[in-house]
Parts: sequence; structure tokens; C-alpha cells
Amino acid sequence: MKLIRYGAAGHEKTGVQIDGVNYSTAGLGSDYNEQFFEAGGLESLTAYLKDNQDKLEKIDDSERLGSPIARPSKIVCIGLNYADHAHETNAPLPPEPVIFFKSTTSLIGPYDKVVIPKNSVKTDWEVELAVVIGKKASYVEEAEAADYIAGYVLHNDVSEREFQLERNGTWDKGKGCDTFAPMGPFLATPDELGDINNLNLWLKVNGETMQNGSTSNLIFNIPFLVSYVSQFMTLLPGDVISTGTPAGVGLGFKPPVYLKPGDVMELGIDGLGSSRQEVVAYEKN
Amino acid sequence: MKLIRYGAAGHEKTGVQIDGVNYSTAGLGSDYNEQFFEAGGLESLTAYLKDNQDKLEKIDDSERLGSPIARPSKIVCIGLNYADHAHETNAPLPPEPVIFFKSTTSLIGPYDKVVIPKNSVKTDWEVELAVVIGKKASYVEEAEAADYIAGYVLHNDVSEREFQLERNGTWDKGKGCDTFAPMGPFLATPDELGDINNLNLWLKVNGETMQNGSTSNLIFNIPFLVSYVSQFMTLLPGDVISTGTPAGVGLGFKPPVYLKPGDVMELGIDGLGSSRQEVVAYEKN
Repeated sequence: MKLIRYGAAGHEKTGVQIDGVNYSTAGLGSDYNEQFFEAGGLESLTAYLKDNQDKLEKIDDSERLGSPIARPSKIVCIGLNYADHAHETNAPLPPEPVIFFKSTTSLIGPYDKVVIPKNSVKTDWEVELAVVIGKKASYVEEAEAADYIAGYVLHNDVSEREFQLERNGTWDKGKGCDTFAPMGPFLATPDELGDINNLNLWLKVNGETMQNGSTSNLIFNIPFLVSYVSQFMTLLPGDVISTGTPAGVGLGFKPPVYLKPGDVMELGIDGLGSSRQEVVAYEKN
Repeated sequence: MKLIRYGAAGHEKTGVQIDGVNYSTAGLGSDYNEQFFEAGGLESLTAYLKDNQDKLEKIDDSERLGSPIARPSKIVCIGLNYADHAHETNAPLPPEPVIFFKSTTSLIGPYDKVVIPKNSVKTDWEVELAVVIGKKASYVEEAEAADYIAGYVLHNDVSEREFQLERNGTWDKGKGCDTFAPMGPFLATPDELGDINNLNLWLKVNGETMQNGSTSNLIFNIPFLVSYVSQFMTLLPGDVISTGTPAGVGLGFKPPVYLKPGDVMELGIDGLGSSRQEVVAYEKN
């Protein structure tokens, strides 16, 4: 299945994408959130689709798409998980995964605008494959990790490099600004994808390819990451682990290249669709 | 007002403490969560207490106390915010605040047990004054920060030093283990406290005083911190900023001293009560 959420920001309704067409599942009566995944919502959704297959309501193409999952309890990110990206940022290869958090207030839809924060001069892009957790995970064995995965989603781990690296403290400062986590267009359940360890992922800025990698080059693979993170904290249903970005971020250019208002990011992953975000300057509401 | 939550973990009901006695406010019908603070819940609670002052139901002393706030969207922590603590950990004084996150799954009640994680050998204590945000805060001016504060709460920022400092990556790895954020006994609204910048805070392990400091020694004070954090992310109602710990943590001893099963931590802050956590080894449920 491919899960979507649509409607005004903060008031999204649920849906599914079938053969490229978006249908509402608002009648199911539950958002795609912690409670949904915890209560076996994917099974309920499967049954709902079967029961209603002839009467699903098409979503108008003009509807905004939101993040395909509701705000999770946490967005855990893995740093430097592609060797080429570690090299371009002059970081050594990590002996074990680097973990940091994005504030969940950064979550937006796949076609929403990314806002350059006030006083930012180094806003950067990062195409990533993100894992959505399906059930409570604590001290999970790598061999059992697949049981804890609800699906996968395309994520742009937007990052402010000065805040992240030059402002004294952990990376968290430059990762969780508002609009810094565009997710979607859809959450794909594992059966929708082929080999998760061999997916192409790419990102363009203003039409020019900046990142072009493959999940075959992940230093730490997905089952290992689910197990690893669960050694340090309990992962809740609906939580996200974003698995890192390949080479080609703005920070890696010599000299570095950063986003400016009017720029357009387009990104995609095999089987997870593509997204597009226009970059705008911060304006007080 | 002093807000409390009581009952079984995950099923807490709300209450207040008046003259040292705990009363239920479950009739109010709302948990002390994001929606509560966002909807002006403190005002509703004030009115509820006035309307029901003669018929409030006393809570039995045998009831467990939970964290006085429901699980927030984020627990933001400030590192190295007391000069004596920065010195003891051989860290330079930060030119601007260090920010990191605790996974919100670490939140527990003030008298709950703290679990030493599997494979942990360096679990440590940190008494802290935590600020609870009352309304959505983005790019808040320091002079207006007080308007965004719902209250204050005693917090033990339990930390695994090997996970935090020696396991490659940001501090987040050693800060968000399950049970690592005992909060309470109560949330005190600002009017309950005198000068927030002159409160004694202390922590004992097995009856021996380990930390004994004063918020007068905060490097970055509370209005500054609320304003500062809000430059990097939007703070939501119910979110927590924990303001750092004074000297006397286990890491600061030569050689360092860490917690072991059977140890008992007691901690307190002037006007915010005291809490007590027994330390236990991890056991698979």
C-alpha cells in the first residue's frame, strides 16, 4: 500500500495512492499516527480498502499533500551513513552510527515550501530514505528488525550548516528548523518495494543533479539501524529513522553552495516517488 | 498552582497540589498536554478550582505520581550551563548555549525507578530546573520570553556517559534511554516561585550530597534560553527546556563514580519539591 495524507496543513485527512491515483480513506476514522500503527492500522486499512474498493472517493488533484504520517514522537537521523558523503564533508567513516534528532516541528508535506531560517546563510539539502516504525521497538535484534518496520518514505533532511557545525553544540541546532523535514509523497509498505538495499536516490537543485546515489552504498543497513537505535531508546509506532544521505550536498562543494530564495529542490527514490520544494526567505507571519 | 499527574504509568489522571495535599482535577477532562496548554488550560484550571474548591477529591497517598506533564513534542536540553559543571567535565565555557534532545520516551514520574540500560557502565545523574512552554514560541524576544512559560519542574537529566561521549556521534545517544527523564513531583506556575534566578538545587546519592548549586550561577538565564532555542525551532505548548546542571555529577569525580543497581537518588529545587529514584538493572519484560 501507499499511504498519503492530504488537505490543509495541520488538518490533513488520510488517503491511499493506487495506480498513481489518490483516494480518500478519511472514512477509516483514524489519522496515520502512533495510535494507528500501534493498533494494527495497516491491517485495518487493508480490510477497509477491500470492503470499499468500488466506492473509494478520488482526491482532487488540486489538494495539497501533507506528510504521509502524522507528527511522530521522534525523527531520529543517522549521520554520515554513505562513505562518499563522509568524504565530501571531511568526516572520518563512523565506526558505529551517528545519531541525532530533528525537532518534529520541522515536518512538512512533499511539495510545501522550505523556509530559510532568519539569519541563515548555509541552508543545504540531503535526500534520504526514511524508515517508519510499525510497532514499539526496544532492544530489537537485527534479524527481527523487519517486523518493526511499517514502511518507507522519501525525506529531504534539510540542514543549516552554520547552525549545525559552527554554533557550538550538537548537530540538532541545524536540523530541526521549521520546514526542514519534507516527507512524502507517500509511505510505501515494504511489499511495494523491491530490494530496499538497491534503490537509486537523487536530488536536483534548479534542474541540476546534485545527488545521485544508491542505498547499496549505505555503510549501516536498515535492519542494523533499527536494531542499533533501539539499544539507546524505545522507538514508538510512527517514529522515523532517516538513514543518511549520499554525496552531493552543498557543503561538499568547493567552495560550498547553499540554497537561496527561489531555488527549487526536486528529489526522489526508486519506488518512493518524488517531491519538490521551492525555497523561500523567512517572513514573519 | 502546582499541577500533578497521578495513577498508573501511561494512564495518568490530572490533579493539583494545595498546601501539600494532592487533589484530583480529573473532572476537568483534559490531560496536561500540548492541547491543554495551547487552549489556555491554566486559566480553565484556575476557574475549575474556584468552582470546585469545596468538593475537590483528595488523592490517596498510595497513588503513584507520574510526570506532571504528558509526553511533550520535545525535551530540549541545554548543556554546560553552569561554569563549575563545565570545568569538572573539562569542557570549555560555551560561547552560546549547547542544545541537545532527550527522546521523549525517557519521561517518567518523580518516584519511578531509573533503569540502567543494557550494556551501560556509566549511568550518571544531573539535577536540573526545567521550563515548560505555555504557548507556541518561534523567534521570541528575550524581553517577551516570560509570556511563553507555563511553569517550572524538577528534572533529573539522567545520562549515560559512554553512550553520550564515547560512542561516536552527538550527545543524544546517551540522554534519551528509557526512564532517563524523571520529572516532578509537580509543575509550579511562575507565581508559585520567588526569584527564578536564585533557587538552590541539590542532588544526593545514597544520602550523600553530590550536587549543591544555585540557579544564580546559570551562564545563560531562562528568558535568554527560551528566546535562543526559539531561533532554531518552534517550541510547542507543553514542550520542555531543561536548563543544565551544576557541578557534582559522577563524571566529574576523579576517578568518575557511576550509578549501580540499588543506589538511590534524591534531588530537589527550592519551590519545586523533591523527588527520589531507585536505580535498578535492566530486565527484559
